[in-house]
Amino acid sequence: MAPCVSLLLPVFAILATLPVIRSAHTFFPRPSYDQSLARQPDASKPKIPYKAHYFPQVIDHFTFQPKSSKIFYQKYLVNSHYWRRGAPIFVYTGNEGDIEWFASNTGFLLDIAPKFRALLVFIEHRFYGESMPFGNKSYKSAETLGYLNSQQALADFAILIRSLKHNLSSEASPVVVFGGSYGGMLAAWFRLKYPHIAIGALASSAPILQFDDITPWSSFYDAVSQDFKEASLNCYEVIKGSWAELEALSAQKEGLTELSRTFRACQDLHSLDSVWDWLWSAFVYTAMVNYPTEANFMMPLPAYPVQAMCKIIDGFPSGASKITRVFAAASLYYNYSRAEKCFKLEHGPDTHGLHGWNWQACTEMVMPMSCSQESMFPPSGFSYKEFAEDCMKTFGAKPRPHWITTEFGGKRIDRALKRSGGNIIFSNGLQDPWSRGGVLKNISSTIIALVTEKGAHHVDFRFATKDDPEWLKELRRKEVEIIQGWIDQYYADLKRLNNE
Amino acid sequence: MAPCVSLLLPVFAILATLPVIRSAHTFFPRPSYDQSLARQPDASKPKIPYKAHYFPQVIDHFTFQPKSSKIFYQKYLVNSHYWRRGAPIFVYTGNEGDIEWFASNTGFLLDIAPKFRALLVFIEHRFYGESMPFGNKSYKSAETLGYLNSQQALADFAILIRSLKHNLSSEASPVVVFGGSYGGMLAAWFRLKYPHIAIGALASSAPILQFDDITPWSSFYDAVSQDFKEASLNCYEVIKGSWAELEALSAQKEGLTELSRTFRACQDLHSLDSVWDWLWSAFVYTAMVNYPTEANFMMPLPAYPVQAMCKIIDGFPSGASKITRVFAAASLYYNYSRAEKCFKLEHGPDTHGLHGWNWQACTEMVMPMSCSQESMFPPSGFSYKEFAEDCMKTFGAKPRPHWITTEFGGKRIDRALKRSGGNIIFSNGLQDPWSRGGVLKNISSTIIALVTEKGAHHVDFRFATKDDPEWLKELRRKEVEIIQGWIDQYYADLKRLNNE
Repeated sequence: MAPCVSLLLPVFAILATLPVIRSAHTFFPRPSYDQSLARQPDASKPKIPYKAHYFPQVIDHFTFQPKSSKIFYQKYLVNSHYWRRGAPIFVYTGNEGDIEWFASNTGFLLDIAPKFRALLVFIEHRFYGESMPFGNKSYKSAETLGYLNSQQALADFAILIRSLKHNLSSEASPVVVFGGSYGGMLAAWFRLKYPHIAIGALASSAPILQFDDITPWSSFYDAVSQDFKEASLNCYEVIKGSWAELEALSAQKEGLTELSRTFRACQDLHSLDSVWDWLWSAFVYTAMVNYPTEANFMMPLPAYPVQAMCKIIDGFPSGASKITRVFAAASLYYNYSRAEKCFKLEHGPDTHGLHGWNWQACTEMVMPMSCSQESMFPPSGFSYKEFAEDCMKTFGAKPRPHWITTEFGGKRIDRALKRSGGNIIFSNGLQDPWSRGGVLKNISSTIIALVTEKGAHHVDFRFATKDDPEWLKELRRKEVEIIQGWIDQYYADLKRLNNE
Repeated sequence: MAPCVSLLLPVFAILATLPVIRSAHTFFPRPSYDQSLARQPDASKPKIPYKAHYFPQVIDHFTFQPKSSKIFYQKYLVNSHYWRRGAPIFVYTGNEGDIEWFASNTGFLLDIAPKFRALLVFIEHRFYGESMPFGNKSYKSAETLGYLNSQQALADFAILIRSLKHNLSSEASPVVVFGGSYGGMLAAWFRLKYPHIAIGALASSAPILQFDDITPWSSFYDAVSQDFKEASLNCYEVIKGSWAELEALSAQKEGLTELSRTFRACQDLHSLDSVWDWLWSAFVYTAMVNYPTEANFMMPLPAYPVQAMCKIIDGFPSGASKITRVFAAASLYYNYSRAEKCFKLEHGPDTHGLHGWNWQACTEMVMPMSCSQESMFPPSGFSYKEFAEDCMKTFGAKPRPHWITTEFGGKRIDRALKRSGGNIIFSNGLQDPWSRGGVLKNISSTIIALVTEKGAHHVDFRFATKDDPEWLKELRRKEVEIIQGWIDQYYADLKRLNNE
């Protein structure tokens, strides 16, 4: 059986590089976008009110060899509908996927743009989406992938923003950066490393403490399990017990054939691994996107989908097998629309297009994870040795497990940032397992943690809906208030300095 | 005639990479160093109370290609005589020369170490001194030199400090970074970029604003001229007029022969350029090191050497030529000890061992400079085009003139760092022409500018002497007080956070 934690397939990556899943959801469900700014209507393409641009970017900002100056084109999206010159610029620091996906799932910026008269800019991360430095050879080897990392990405953002402001003759416009998940880590780090370019950062669900030994390695999967346990103790126990049932069945003669039938596999299964991954993904992602309203971030799902899954599991008659129950629960994730006749288990989440994040996880973004005895997944540890061997075999790359905490900090972050840095919001929802690696306590008067008990993965970044609960409205209201405070202060500083 | 400003030979470089000049001065003039910690006595080598170590460092921190992980050995010096575990660690962020030179000219740290019970660490900058990543092929081409830049150097410091603290089991020891000149820029940038590693920085004579169009391009040479003008208006006018006299003489038949005789050249001159550079260096360096006491940073010189030079120029009978006068003045710089029988003008400052800084100046450290009509040097402008062509011809490298201000800021620094950063002292002496590109006004309550009217290039870093004037004692007293404040605050924060 595959281990509970496969760090070569971290959740971020799966979340962000799943063409199958991504193409299954509408990119821009809200119909009231500004047609004049939208891309040409095309039924097969997402409609978002942004215009795409391409910026000539240098491949290597930190060496000066002849080949370091090679140019590639970095995609970025702009919405200038609400903007007037001199007003703020809100920049989304793109993460590990194509930028349209993040733009369409960060409606918050469109919601608040009118109030701030803000220019909205979504910058795609190098080596994702269309921003491929070596075209379709970008993922060819460690030689090309070598340039894919967070520090280069931050420098890309810095150069692009500076150029954009210059070209717009808006050098005095304050820039606020926004990001969710890995993009949230980038937003926070950007504010820390480039305070001369961004006056503040809203980092939503940014697990900047998920490195080294800062956060207990088991916390991620413990948090997933906690979500299910809170919904129903029975549900948690059924899932926890299902792995052994699956293993026992698959070991039987014709076991895989029966599993293929039970799981309505489009093609006969060759091993238990794909069933395991298929279930694992469903539970983990559902915990992450345990939103309070119907939503369609990764897949269409009802409000509070963890509760909905557990309702399914708990609703079976007492004699039903655990396998039947977990299959039905996972079907909610994969087939809420009920359009699927069968499931492609063998072409599941961890077998497609994961190069980008997996590369990052194998070099800089080393996030050790394990499953404790208390989690609903089979217990497993984290062996750095095995991890490093896998990375070397897969990519020819050696991980640098302490690099992120050396470059960006994280250890004893309260002490480190008490007398430096400022104007950062870390927002986290405790339903989101990534919250365990997030900043959950205020660090200073201007490095603020906003924590919601019922929040999930960057829920604050979603479009406001009429069904949003009060705590979510309050969270967004606080964020807007704090950002307004940064901007007011910036203009006041500017005025005072200009008068000096 | 060579232009007034040769940006391929900036003063830092000449200052730091002059083996001839360096070997001519004693590295450690103060006799009372701790013998037990000193290197083995060797008459031909400088004696400093530090032990040399070598740290395995990765060649490229910001890409992950197979060759990026190549290891080189970075030299660092340690003095642990005053230290006890848990006490502060004072780190000098080495600049563009061998680290012994900086250690021996930063007696300030040895002077204050007992008070703080501090560990002293001087880290050599990659590609200088013994820290050659590719041995004697390090300067071979842009392929190898490509790894020489400030960001890689800062990452080297971060990794080395973290490892050192770990190995000393002193992870809670506060680190304060110190640096002078380019090393001061590195110290300030290190505190800004790595606040989780250093709690504060003392950046002495750090011209972090000498980039782009932040500081007027003519300010450096205007400041040199101002030093001489303040000493004596006649002196300034003699020097200002000497260039035309030199040009006229060199254009005459046998002019160069006469110049060779006048300048006591060891070998016959082939062009005016070497005389010009020889004089230029003498005036610029003397302005930089216009210290209030006898000193021997670059060359042995009397107290207030600019005044001493002007006294020589003014002391000639009225009929004396300007050429005779400037030669006599420059001789003070090159021959204060009166040991030289002749001068090696053609093997002067700008022809030896300048690769390191020149490479940096041609890639990242682009500091445009010009000479105004008011300066005592022949007027000249700055052509970026010519500069870039020279760099391409010399190194095969294309300058990135806006990179430093994008990566580290500098433009509108008061605004940028008002709400971020903290615990930095920028100390500058107005005698030092580099002060014009320094931070001369407080930015916030913890980013402090200490400016002395009579100070020269990182004068505060020199050993205290019995002849030090009151203003210099007061400057050092203030620095120690502020650093003590950072450390006290750090321990108080630590105690409070540990109790929470």
